[in-house]
Amino acid sequence: MDAEIIAVGSELLTPFRQDTNSLFLTDKLNSLGIEVRFKTIVGDDSERLTQAFRVALGRSRLIILTGGLGPTEDDVNRQVVAEVLARPLREVPEIRQRIEERFTRLGRTMAENNLRQTLVPEGAEWLKNRQGTAPGLWIEQDGIVIIMLPGPPRELEGMFEAECLSRLARLVPAQCLRSRVYKAVGLAESEVDQRIAPIYKTYSNPSTTILATPGAIEVHLRARAASEAEADSLLTELGEKIEAALGDHLFTSRGESLEEVVGMCLVLRRKTLAVAESCTGGLLAERLTRVPGSSNYFLGGAVCYSNELKTRLAGVPQNLLEENGAVSKPVALALAEGIRRHTGASMGIGITGIAGPGGGSDEKPVGLVFIALADERGTQVREFRFPGDRERVRLWATQAALEMIRRRIRD
Amino acid sequence: MDAEIIAVGSELLTPFRQDTNSLFLTDKLNSLGIEVRFKTIVGDDSERLTQAFRVALGRSRLIILTGGLGPTEDDVNRQVVAEVLARPLREVPEIRQRIEERFTRLGRTMAENNLRQTLVPEGAEWLKNRQGTAPGLWIEQDGIVIIMLPGPPRELEGMFEAECLSRLARLVPAQCLRSRVYKAVGLAESEVDQRIAPIYKTYSNPSTTILATPGAIEVHLRARAASEAEADSLLTELGEKIEAALGDHLFTSRGESLEEVVGMCLVLRRKTLAVAESCTGGLLAERLTRVPGSSNYFLGGAVCYSNELKTRLAGVPQNLLEENGAVSKPVALALAEGIRRHTGASMGIGITGIAGPGGGSDEKPVGLVFIALADERGTQVREFRFPGDRERVRLWATQAALEMIRRRIRD
Repeated sequence: MDAEIIAVGSELLTPFRQDTNSLFLTDKLNSLGIEVRFKTIVGDDSERLTQAFRVALGRSRLIILTGGLGPTEDDVNRQVVAEVLARPLREVPEIRQRIEERFTRLGRTMAENNLRQTLVPEGAEWLKNRQGTAPGLWIEQDGIVIIMLPGPPRELEGMFEAECLSRLARLVPAQCLRSRVYKAVGLAESEVDQRIAPIYKTYSNPSTTILATPGAIEVHLRARAASEAEADSLLTELGEKIEAALGDHLFTSRGESLEEVVGMCLVLRRKTLAVAESCTGGLLAERLTRVPGSSNYFLGGAVCYSNELKTRLAGVPQNLLEENGAVSKPVALALAEGIRRHTGASMGIGITGIAGPGGGSDEKPVGLVFIALADERGTQVREFRFPGDRERVRLWATQAALEMIRRRIRD
Repeated sequence: MDAEIIAVGSELLTPFRQDTNSLFLTDKLNSLGIEVRFKTIVGDDSERLTQAFRVALGRSRLIILTGGLGPTEDDVNRQVVAEVLARPLREVPEIRQRIEERFTRLGRTMAENNLRQTLVPEGAEWLKNRQGTAPGLWIEQDGIVIIMLPGPPRELEGMFEAECLSRLARLVPAQCLRSRVYKAVGLAESEVDQRIAPIYKTYSNPSTTILATPGAIEVHLRARAASEAEADSLLTELGEKIEAALGDHLFTSRGESLEEVVGMCLVLRRKTLAVAESCTGGLLAERLTRVPGSSNYFLGGAVCYSNELKTRLAGVPQNLLEENGAVSKPVALALAEGIRRHTGASMGIGITGIAGPGGGSDEKPVGLVFIALADERGTQVREFRFPGDRERVRLWATQAALEMIRRRIRD
């Protein structure tokens, strides 16, 4: 059974808003082995919704409409679906009672508008809304299932989980879709593909998707089987071959972020970390502390944007700054060693570079970044040239620093 | 002329990825007075794309297809469009030459696969890609304009701006859509609506949209007119009333972020800033340094996650920590004053709190944050209770700190 999602709402056709409900729905549908084949976004407009709904009826066996169930005249879903399916709308007293009770509980009286929400196309089941007034609808016609859900994410999610999942499960063969997310650093998307395409192309189940994200290449595997265990074993079979092909560029097979993986490595080895950042301006510290429990290994750091602060907070000798300039190998080294000494951490990181857009020169262009790592075994420093704008340079620099930590701990 | 966008890519039908290109395209199309009426998302599948494309041809005068122009066999857009429009594909030697040159410049040789990208449906114009290999395509048939753009956002955006905007402008009546974005802090979405609904409801042009974003409420105005000047004067008329209604909660009428506004305030008053952060872990420094040129006013800061670092980097007396606990008013004050003294900045900020999910107690629950500001006029400290998860608490805390700076400078 393939699904199609129609998100209804004029705000979803502006530059400001995205339909995010479909991501939630896709995840839940996939868990039942149902794939989403089309997504359509259409405004609060009867004629255009009619058109989109007719198209969907011609090609999909499960159609989920989201939004458009509110109490105002903008909300046209109920009318459109009833008309297209030729089922007259009837008031359901129990819905009216529930809405009136809800208003009473909130100390208000029901607006006349809300009566629209009590209307149900003949022969449809209505779905309880525990978070709001608009009931959902479940309609089966000519072998097609049509589900109508309210637009607000909390209402939609609660209703789908409570009312739709088990109903759907009865309609599809007991099938299970499981996924696994590998992430690699230090390889381009094309290099990852070159290494693993000969492997994954021989499998149609699991299916493989390669995604380039800022800082990492992700490999998503999705397997279908009759049981979770069977799906997992399919994932493991292909996954092990992918792991072998990508080697130590792979930092997770469970979808974790690089800062989470680094955090686990530090905890395992009982190491602590401190950082001294210039061009990344606190982004490395911020990423490290996104992880709950990071206070167990991350002591803190210095954001030394000015030269004076490089000296004050991380003990970089002033003459080093004068002789080499702030963006230089020796200063990166001194930042890493200085912050380690200053904080008593087992590992210190120093980052200095030119994030742009200004401040570059022929000799030291935008994107030039030096990263140093100091620990009890000594200090290493690497030079990078990152492409892209300020945001990308900063992101790549923190990614490179995290990867240096991961490799240092692993070795 | 109404537009329809078809985003092609199987990854856009997974729970992991969103089509974001359509937001960029909608914004640009709106600026020409073109509205987007439908968005469709379809996988890399010839049959389903054929279906979606045929549907679009039946209802829209401008169809933009994004993605599906890559060098691999997954990428089916070229073939599908050529077939549906009955225009055979022909190799264009100039495209081949450009791709080969690009590979030579990068020191690599062109893969055989890339030849697919040299194919153009008969009678179509091809659009230069300055950021990648895949050319775009522009086709006019039976009064319908079909634009095909590559999927990677940088390539799509560059190509659309350089190659499509002026071509489209020639096809639509000289009409102009201009927008203005106001942002407010310290008011809930419903409070903003209550204050301005009586005003904006009397205008159909400009149209008004209120959006709640993390940390700010945005009011988007969009005006249509025959000229930019006319549209701008419509915006100004409504905008001034909205400014009066929202008062000093408004921090921009030009869409800037709060950190950009704070940066401009600091530059204007020739002030410098340093920060000492605990629970926000570097996020405040990171936000401040996202702004190009922030080195003119931001000296740097300390991320003092451990108590010891609060003492070492920001000079918080140890007994203060022992007597009050790290999350307390006196420690916030000491962080702000300490980092100001330590760095010589004209203004110091101190933040300490409990971001969660762990670490809370009845007395000091998750979400409790103290923020202090020290300058030559003295030190002020505020207590906040932010709702939500770790990420939201951290974001709200930095937003509150930035707002304290903005108000202190303005007063």
